[in-house]
Amino acid sequence: MQNHSAIAVLQRVRNAQPLVHNITNYVVMSLTANALLAINASPIMAHASEEVEEIIHHAHALVINIGTLETPWLNSMRMAMKAAKNKSIPIILDPVGAGATLFRTQSVLQLIAHVPPNVIRGNAAEILALSGHLLSSSKGVDSVYASETARQAAQSLAECYGCVVVISGEKDFIISQKNTACVIQGTPMMARVTGLGCTATALIAAFCATEKDYFSASVAAMAIMGLAGELAMDTAKGPGSFQTHFIDALFNL
Amino acid sequence: MQNHSAIAVLQRVRNAQPLVHNITNYVVMSLTANALLAINASPIMAHASEEVEEIIHHAHALVINIGTLETPWLNSMRMAMKAAKNKSIPIILDPVGAGATLFRTQSVLQLIAHVPPNVIRGNAAEILALSGHLLSSSKGVDSVYASETARQAAQSLAECYGCVVVISGEKDFIISQKNTACVIQGTPMMARVTGLGCTATALIAAFCATEKDYFSASVAAMAIMGLAGELAMDTAKGPGSFQTHFIDALFNL
Amino acid sequence: MQNHSAIAVLQRVRNAQPLVHNITNYVVMSLTANALLAINASPIMAHASEEVEEIIHHAHALVINIGTLETPWLNSMRMAMKAAKNKSIPIILDPVGAGATLFRTQSVLQLIAHVPPNVIRGNAAEILALSGHLLSSSKGVDSVYASETARQAAQSLAECYGCVVVISGEKDFIISQKNTACVIQGTPMMARVTGLGCTATALIAAFCATEKDYFSASVAAMAIMGLAGELAMDTAKGPGSFQTHFIDALFNL
Repeated sequence: MQNHSAIAVLQRVRNAQPLVHNITNYVVMSLTANALLAINASPIMAHASEEVEEIIHHAHALVINIGTLETPWLNSMRMAMKAAKNKSIPIILDPVGAGATLFRTQSVLQLIAHVPPNVIRGNAAEILALSGHLLSSSKGVDSVYASETARQAAQSLAECYGCVVVISGEKDFIISQKNTACVIQGTPMMARVTGLGCTATALIAAFCATEKDYFSASVAAMAIMGLAGELAMDTAKGPGSFQTHFIDALFNL
Repeated sequence: MQNHSAIAVLQRVRNAQPLVHNITNYVVMSLTANALLAINASPIMAHASEEVEEIIHHAHALVINIGTLETPWLNSMRMAMKAAKNKSIPIILDPVGAGATLFRTQSVLQLIAHVPPNVIRGNAAEILALSGHLLSSSKGVDSVYASETARQAAQSLAECYGCVVVISGEKDFIISQKNTACVIQGTPMMARVTGLGCTATALIAAFCATEKDYFSASVAAMAIMGLAGELAMDTAKGPGSFQTHFIDALFNL
Repeated sequence: MQNHSAIAVLQRVRNAQPLVHNITNYVVMSLTANALLAINASPIMAHASEEVEEIIHHAHALVINIGTLETPWLNSMRMAMKAAKNKSIPIILDPVGAGATLFRTQSVLQLIAHVPPNVIRGNAAEILALSGHLLSSSKGVDSVYASETARQAAQSLAECYGCVVVISGEKDFIISQKNTACVIQGTPMMARVTGLGCTATALIAAFCATEKDYFSASVAAMAIMGLAGELAMDTAKGPGSFQTHFIDALFNL
């Protein structure tokens, strides 16, 4: 996909102003909301079982992110996923830290078995963990590499669940049953700001709410992430200013 | 109210350094604390039922914000509101997302019935929801408009509960039983940063802790929000740098 | 300790890339993670009792921070502390708001009795509270002063539990059974950004993961905090830009 195509999808997102329902982790809630607002989407963060189904009634996409998972949230995640599937809005899953603990790996596998998401986005370690290649060690949730093995794991997940799988890292791979794309944009600084992976997941959700070909939507979202990262890097003096400029770049693209 | 009056109230807040107890949502906790620190107030975030009454013992104002509400928090909110009322410190309520779900609308109406707050600040959709004009659709928590109907809803809430109601939006309306004011400062960029409405609520709390005429305090707080927004906009290149400059502006005003 | 020694320790932290497990408060999770990433450490935030022991299995240091404490988290904190002690990785405790409420004071004293931490970092009011000098009033969690009494309290805590105690404030005191150091770097602006105390705690954890003399590690971490603060202040226009520049400075030191 050329950058101008990605920006064309972004422009449609801006016009559509999709409402993105996020059941996500405490660390990234603020950045995620700001990134969605920067592209003119409407974020809502809500996790109470009493209201998630009603939120889905209004929403155009659902983000499920297990970054600071605790058991009571799982029930709400399941309810929201079921409601989203019934309404046929896209479900984007971010398996933060899958592979790091049995609790995360099993919880996310149960969520996927309950309702297969439309897109799964993680780093290589997380995608490998979901496909059964459990890791013997972990470098935290920010580890980034994308081996041939990870891409094969993504391919088998995509085929098993009929979903798109995005492996983000130095190069981003977007993999569906039929297609594979690689986005080479971005900057290593993106790994030095917490929650930029989760931000990518939220942008994919906004894009999938607007572009019904979820593979193309995911490629476009990752391209926009990379473009905004490169623009931000032009003037950043470190990861603090990079984060600020990144949100500005998302807004100005 | 002239800007110099608002700045005079701000100066008194800086001198008084009020302790503001926030039971608020996960998304905005950090920004709220930083905004309060920028005006030399002391923020404390605490929601455990074991301690909210003791926190109120030290506090000069209470913020109740239902942005990421879950049922166990409601009990702490009720306890804190009761304690604040007994101590006669101002209670400022932010009904984030009221109208978006029955859970939020009912919860916030129960909180108000339990202990009427001194100030309610929301966007027009939220204020309408509280006054019974339930909305058939929602644009998330960042929707902004302030129709004649919303102002009438605010007026009836103000009369029913003897409180001040602030509708924030492109124009901010501050409405009490006897008075109405309109603040036209600010910039549309404020709607593109998550939590600036919640920030306004927290500033109102700090101002009401210092200026016992809650109507005047609310007008002054909204004027300061608008002034800081305009100053921040002078050099902002997008919503990322806007948020940074906004906190700087609050500090420098 | 000279600055060049502190920077030498920082360089070793960058090379070691320690995984720091944080059970911390909602307000500072994002800033803490970003500060750790800025010095090339790997942050992980996880608090579910189902997984904290397994996280410790991978981790090189543990941060326990009670800033937005609720009872269910205490169980996970105890489990993580026990596992960290068994694995002999450093435990760094931040008693946010100790003294402000009985719940916080008692909870943190129980945690310390359960498993004595290797380092305790707090402001003077918090350290005094832990040593039994309960305060009759509180100025929130951001109060800063370090009287002779506070230093005596730190000394008795250090002797009682065999740990290092750091009192941060205008001057930082690092106190062990045998040694005392004072770091005079930094800027008053650091008290105007929420969570910089918690950031210091997290940096101490990363440093103790690398430098096994926890007294020296704590002195180095506080010196780096102060240096980064002074660098950030050179170009900051208020607390908003200060926070951004502070993260940049940590990255660039």
